[in-house]
Order: sequence, then C-alpha cells, then structure tokens
Amino acid sequence: MTLPDRVSIREVGPRDGLQNEDVVPTEAKVRLLDSLSGTGVKRIEAVSFVHPKAIPQMADASEVWAAAVKAVGVRYSALVPNSKGAERALAAGFTEIEVVVSASNTHNLRNVNRSTDESLDDIAGLIDLLHGAGATAEVIISTSFGCPYEGNVDPERVHAIVDRVLADGADRISFGDTTGMATPRRVVEVVDPVLQRHADTPVLLHFHNTRGTALANILMALQLGVTEFDAAIGGLGGCPYAPGATGNVATEEVVHMLEDMGIDTGIDLAALIESAKLAQEIVGRELPSGVLKAGPRI
Amino acid sequence: MTLPDRVSIREVGPRDGLQNEDVVPTEAKVRLLDSLSGTGVKRIEAVSFVHPKAIPQMADASEVWAAAVKAVGVRYSALVPNSKGAERALAAGFTEIEVVVSASNTHNLRNVNRSTDESLDDIAGLIDLLHGAGATAEVIISTSFGCPYEGNVDPERVHAIVDRVLADGADRISFGDTTGMATPRRVVEVVDPVLQRHADTPVLLHFHNTRGTALANILMALQLGVTEFDAAIGGLGGCPYAPGATGNVATEEVVHMLEDMGIDTGIDLAALIESAKLAQEIVGRELPSGVLKAGPRI
Repeated sequence: MTLPDRVSIREVGPRDGLQNEDVVPTEAKVRLLDSLSGTGVKRIEAVSFVHPKAIPQMADASEVWAAAVKAVGVRYSALVPNSKGAERALAAGFTEIEVVVSASNTHNLRNVNRSTDESLDDIAGLIDLLHGAGATAEVIISTSFGCPYEGNVDPERVHAIVDRVLADGADRISFGDTTGMATPRRVVEVVDPVLQRHADTPVLLHFHNTRGTALANILMALQLGVTEFDAAIGGLGGCPYAPGATGNVATEEVVHMLEDMGIDTGIDLAALIESAKLAQEIVGRELPSGVLKAGPRI
Repeated sequence: MTLPDRVSIREVGPRDGLQNEDVVPTEAKVRLLDSLSGTGVKRIEAVSFVHPKAIPQMADASEVWAAAVKAVGVRYSALVPNSKGAERALAAGFTEIEVVVSASNTHNLRNVNRSTDESLDDIAGLIDLLHGAGATAEVIISTSFGCPYEGNVDPERVHAIVDRVLADGADRISFGDTTGMATPRRVVEVVDPVLQRHADTPVLLHFHNTRGTALANILMALQLGVTEFDAAIGGLGGCPYAPGATGNVATEEVVHMLEDMGIDTGIDLAALIESAKLAQEIVGRELPSGVLKAGPRI
C-alpha cells in the first residue's frame, strides 16, 4: 500500500465551522483565526462573503479579516456565493476564492433557489471575474457523496459537473460531503475517476463526520493519492439536517491519525489542541473531537 | 483493493459497554440483550463473571443470563478473569469463554496485580480447564496498540504473547485497543504478521473510538483480510483513563459503513438503531454514536 509522505490540510473552522454555530463576537473570531495561524497549518478558510440576512454568522467578515493576523506562509481563502460576494472578497484582498454548487439539484434549489445548471452558468461568469482580478477559483461540489433530500447522488452527475467547471476554467475542485453520507466505497466511486481523467487538477476532499466515517474516508482517499483535506478545529459546525449531529471532521483528529502514520502535516498537534479548547470556549458547547476530549495518544 | 464479502460482528455492549457505565438494573440488561438478539447480530458478549466488589456492574451476571432469551443462531460468550469466574461461566452454560491479558506489563499489574508473564501462566491453566469442560478459549490481548501508562507497545511484545497463548492452546485471539490508541499504521504492524504466521487462527479486533480512528482502523484491517470485529451498541462504555471520552466503536456505525460498502454483516440497521435508542435510555446519557444521532444515510 502506498501512502503520501505529506498532506496539506485546510482549516475551515473559522468559516464552515462558525457558519453552523450560534453567532459569536467579532473579537472571538479574530482570536480563533490568530490562534490557528500559529499552529503550523498552511491553509485557512477564513470567512465567507455572504448576505448577512442569509448567514448572520458571517456578517462581520470584512471586520474579522481586517483585524486578523495574516501569517507569513499561510494561504487564506474566502468563500463567495455570487459576484457581489466576489467583489467584497477581492476588495478585502483575497486571492484564493471558493464558489459552491450542489451536485444534487434539489439541494441546490433549496439552498440558492436555482438549479444546478443555473448555478454552473453563474460560476462560469464568476471564474472569469476572479481570473480577471488575478485570483484563483476553487469550485466546491457539495452533496458529492449523497444528498439529504435526494439520497444517493450518481457519481456520473458529479463527474459531469467536474468536466463542466474545468472547461470553464476552475483552478481546483473540492468534493463536499455536506451531510456526512460518504463511505470509503463512495470515495472511490466519486474521486478515483476524476484523478484518472484530470491528473493535473488539484483535488481537495471535505468530509463531515456525521456518521463516524470521516477518517476512514480520508484513509481511502490517501490510498487513491489525494493529499488535500479540509477539517475544522474541534469538529466545529453542526449538521443543519440533523440537530445535535456532528459536522466537520476535527482537524486535531486528522492530524493525530496522519502524524501517527508517519504522514507529515506540518501542524503542531499540541498547539492545535489549544486552538480546539479556544474554539470550544468560544462556542460554549462541548465539541465532538475525541482528541480534544482524550488528548493525544502519548 | 480486495475487501471481504462478509464480516462477523460481535456485539459487546452488554458486557464491555455496561461494565464501563453506571450500574443499571438487571431487567434493563435483559431487555438490552433480548433487543440485540433480535437485530440479526450473530455473536454477543453477554456478561462477565468477575468479582462483584471489583466490578459491581456485572454482579448479577448469572441472573441476567438466566433471564435472557437465548436466540437460535446467536453465539453468546462470557469473559472471565480466573478459574473461579470460568467455573461460574461454565455452570451458567457458556461454551465460548474469553480471558484477558494486557500486552503492557504496567497495565496488567495495575489491572490484576500480576505481571503479564504471571497472567500468561494463569491463562495456560484456564485454557486447559475450559477445554476439559468442552468450551473454547479466546485470549484477548488488551493494550495491543498502546498503553495509557507505558505509551507505545512494541508489536513484537504482542506477537510473543500470541505465540505463547497459541502454544498453550488458545482457540482464538482478539487484539484490544483498550484506550483508543490504534491508528491504521499500528493495525498493520500488530495484525499483519499474526495473519502471516498463524493463517488458521481466528483473529478478532476490538477498537475503541476514543480518538476517532475506529472505522479507519477497521477499513485497514479489512484490507489485511480480517473479518471479525467487536463493537458496542450506541458506542456504550467510556474510557476509564479519560473522563468523558468515547469508548467502544458503535455497532451501528460499523454496520452502516460496511453495508454501504457492500459488505454483508447480516444485521438489520433499523433494528440496531432501535437497540441503540434503548441503550441510551437505559444508561440515561447521550451516547456518542453518529448514526444514532443522525440516522442512516438514506
């Protein structure tokens, strides 16, 4: 079995995590971002520029970003839903931008009141806008491994979306397991053909641990050759479709497993656990991370 | 990648799970056992025959077992610490008996006030006693993947214990990840040489999900050819070394992942989730199982 020597983890707690928690103060968001910037993690999804009525948790995105330390050697990214968000993100100085489309048409309709195809048309324009401003465009394909409304999602549908957005100029692809429906078999079915057909495209996987499978999915993806993963400090963020359920896989659980397997993440686990304690304090609820509760294995 | 077509899961919630929870009434234990006997699971670790002062949770083992439905087609086993426990288990009618030794000498000393070598001498006698009564003897090697006192455990130490107990007549070997210190790499290091050297010996793995790695460890073990796993309904049982931490991997999380991967467990997931709800009601605390919280993926 061949596993990569190193893996690049993107910390998404400040955005995807906090977006699914109760609103927290601006200064707390800045403290969490700054804490994470000191853990050795090289990529952080910092904020999203969305309408404050739709997502009040991110209403202060510009203020958070203005106040945060921009650590040398850390790549920060922002998520945007449309051209207005993109303009705000560019104005704030971001050069790595993420846009989202759902592989499930029903999920896309319920999220943004547009069909998947309509969103793909929008994204084509967004990619041009971002490229014109010198930024890169990552397309996140949510519900890639299953949809809470439609159930299973045909991998061929996901692959067609990949082909479309790459043809439209996307720089990177992320596959989102939005509600924790991925299992190792589905990782192979969705991801392997993409790696075969688009060997030069950076591919990132975003797993939720809703049903406990996140680390198994990562193990399978490593065996396929994937080396980029999202994770959220402490396992921040819930699942909007199942109250009380777990959201993102915890960054410290990913780092703990990978480092013990001899796979370099560049991240200091002790520092990461301190950030997880801070995250738990900020949101004021017990976070699901096992490594936060039990500590590292030694 | 080759994965097995079917897997045999042993449900250990009634014993290993409840042994690490607050004491629950006898009738509740019987209800849980009977519920599990109707899920399609083919093996259940029902009780342990230990001294009631050491483990009050199992003081009523004989009463529980006498009252429980013995379902046709289900293999029930009991754990015993010594010859007195073995006599009780045999008198109760068990023919599948488990004995335990810790790979870590410190852990063994703290648990039973004997060195690992002294326990191995005892086990040799126990195996003879059990075989003389027509029962089988499974040796569980706890702390096989790490020890809360000693840290890492040398796999060669584990392998020497395997060689010893097999020479003494053990019918089966179980590797216990007592405090959730296993990662896929350690699964390979501990288990693969045993499979190579003792191809005819049934091998069972017992993972705790303390640091989130249980399903990843199972995925790795499947790839090595292991087809027998312990799991506890709802993720019953805590970790005595880390208050609030998670214990056994939840049976419904294992079944959910395996069945979605096309691996037959023979277990009805919906019935299993009902048993998990019952387990949660009985212990009166929120259990950690993601599948219990979020439901199955479809």
